[in-house]
Amino acid sequence: MSHAADSFHALLGQVRTHVDVELAAWLRPRVAAATAVSAEVGAAATAIEGLSLGGGKRMRAALVHAGYVACAAPSDESVAAALAPVSRAMIAVELLQTYLLIHDDWMDDDDVRRGGPSVHVVLAERLGGKRIGDAAAVLAGDLASGYAQDALLESPLPADRVVAAARAFARIQEDVVTGQLAEMSAAAVAGRKAPSVETIHELKTASYTVTGPLALGAHLAGATDARVAELARYGRPLGIAFQLRDDLLGAFGDPSATGKPVGNDIRQGKRTALVAEMRGDAASEALLARVLGREDASDADVDAVVRAMETTGAKARVEARVGELLGEARSALTAMNLGEASFGHRWLDGAIRALGERSA
Amino acid sequence: MSHAADSFHALLGQVRTHVDVELAAWLRPRVAAATAVSAEVGAAATAIEGLSLGGGKRMRAALVHAGYVACAAPSDESVAAALAPVSRAMIAVELLQTYLLIHDDWMDDDDVRRGGPSVHVVLAERLGGKRIGDAAAVLAGDLASGYAQDALLESPLPADRVVAAARAFARIQEDVVTGQLAEMSAAAVAGRKAPSVETIHELKTASYTVTGPLALGAHLAGATDARVAELARYGRPLGIAFQLRDDLLGAFGDPSATGKPVGNDIRQGKRTALVAEMRGDAASEALLARVLGREDASDADVDAVVRAMETTGAKARVEARVGELLGEARSALTAMNLGEASFGHRWLDGAIRALGERSA
Repeated sequence: MSHAADSFHALLGQVRTHVDVELAAWLRPRVAAATAVSAEVGAAATAIEGLSLGGGKRMRAALVHAGYVACAAPSDESVAAALAPVSRAMIAVELLQTYLLIHDDWMDDDDVRRGGPSVHVVLAERLGGKRIGDAAAVLAGDLASGYAQDALLESPLPADRVVAAARAFARIQEDVVTGQLAEMSAAAVAGRKAPSVETIHELKTASYTVTGPLALGAHLAGATDARVAELARYGRPLGIAFQLRDDLLGAFGDPSATGKPVGNDIRQGKRTALVAEMRGDAASEALLARVLGREDASDADVDAVVRAMETTGAKARVEARVGELLGEARSALTAMNLGEASFGHRWLDGAIRALGERSA
Repeated sequence: MSHAADSFHALLGQVRTHVDVELAAWLRPRVAAATAVSAEVGAAATAIEGLSLGGGKRMRAALVHAGYVACAAPSDESVAAALAPVSRAMIAVELLQTYLLIHDDWMDDDDVRRGGPSVHVVLAERLGGKRIGDAAAVLAGDLASGYAQDALLESPLPADRVVAAARAFARIQEDVVTGQLAEMSAAAVAGRKAPSVETIHELKTASYTVTGPLALGAHLAGATDARVAELARYGRPLGIAFQLRDDLLGAFGDPSATGKPVGNDIRQGKRTALVAEMRGDAASEALLARVLGREDASDADVDAVVRAMETTGAKARVEARVGELLGEARSALTAMNLGEASFGHRWLDGAIRALGERSA
């Protein structure tokens, strides 16, 4: 691992410690208030708390910090000094993640999350029915979304910056939801004109994973619109590369490192970049038609798809595209002229490696 | 109808015209942007647009305006002059309502809304399946929620006021969701300690119908926290009375005026104040156990419940409670000392009659 990625991982470590403590303290009175309404409302808030504190990497929080530092250019270059101003915003992106995971798991019928039962499963058991558990999980997600807005708006910074950050935050929600709608309906109405996989990756992943958190940090630092746009030119390709890397890991990653069984994406019928790159020749189409999205596909069939991803060159093309996108991110970073030794440049450079070259 | 209520209805009329035009203009480019992503994403945005423009009373928008006027005490006492500053906030509360209606209809399995198919029904048809329609409807609600935040944050007023309003807005979302969770789980785990019907009405209805919109207007006028608290003392009982009146209309209202068939609440098993007031004697309990929440209950059975609501005194007690709450609202208004002839006092006084004494 390079020195730059090392720095980002060191940042991640410091951010994680900070966010874990702050998020726990922030949620505690809210869980108590919810429990005072009724035990079941308390159960929903407790589920939010459990998911929020249960082992997130805090990568999005670290990018809020990186965006802030890149634009505020603080004279005190200690991480600790720059954490306090964006502490609430870091809590907000993590709670946004909680909200999205709760709704996602329900939509995808994923019953396990971070090693435990998903929120809709917990609440179905608690309330005695699948249907009511689903509804309660959607409400729990909505509650986490309310918390997230609340946390961001508590940022101890000039109000005009907070308003700008809150607008960027609403935009993230709109982007993610738009991306999910696009992805879902592309699968449902196959054949009709659908947005490209990269457009969906940009909306569904890049916005809330990279460009959104960076924009929050930048706005909270009082950045100009031009600066925020520069950061987006860096963050957009990085965010898409991050999702492409995810697609690659889903087929070729080490399950013990990724935590996901090989073939999961294939059995779930995910429209990944690998699948998109396989399209076109008759043999691949026939194979995909037979295996993709079949929960009960055999290991041999899944293996055949994975092998075809290599033999058709799909894997190589996606890897090349990741390289190209990371190159774009690097150029955009250079164009920002932050000064190679600066705090901001170092984090952002490290993030390219950490997000684009990760193996888990 | 009294003069005061007349004034509020006149205000409602002016607000409705303004909001209908502004909301349509605000949504148009967003629907276009969604459609540019894909036809199906466009369908979700179009459903949001249709529901938002399809005949809301704009009562919540009018209360944003009333809260603003009560606290800003503008020298130009024309409605038109006071509309522009809160225009975005009025759009926001209407979009919040859209978001909540979309999620509610899905949760309650209500297939009709404002005379047309509900959003989850429209999207299920469009995407070719119930399950995907449900997921897309939840996403459409989330999108409307993002729009709502966005609109509010565009308010052309000092940023510190906008931040305060946005925090109140997040609080509304938290309250409504908490109230829905409490109501839903009270029904599911009957017998265990549940919050009172009024606590649920306060969270689920009063907050987003009355106190929330008033707080938005007040914060946008730069009101002190003390003033916002005074408005809440007026709005809370009014909001609860509004919901109690709704409970009464559900059982005793004229279906041609309310638009809801008599017995709807009873067949859906709603835990209304009337039902809560009937509890305690053996005959009522037996009747409720037999009829409440039975979609296929006969008209005779529904009639029997409605009659019991009268003979047990439940109706009279709920009506008395409405009177008491409206008295509280009136006292709180007097205590605000706005001056009886003022713009703000007149709207708020009229709102007591319009919301508390309505027949539809």
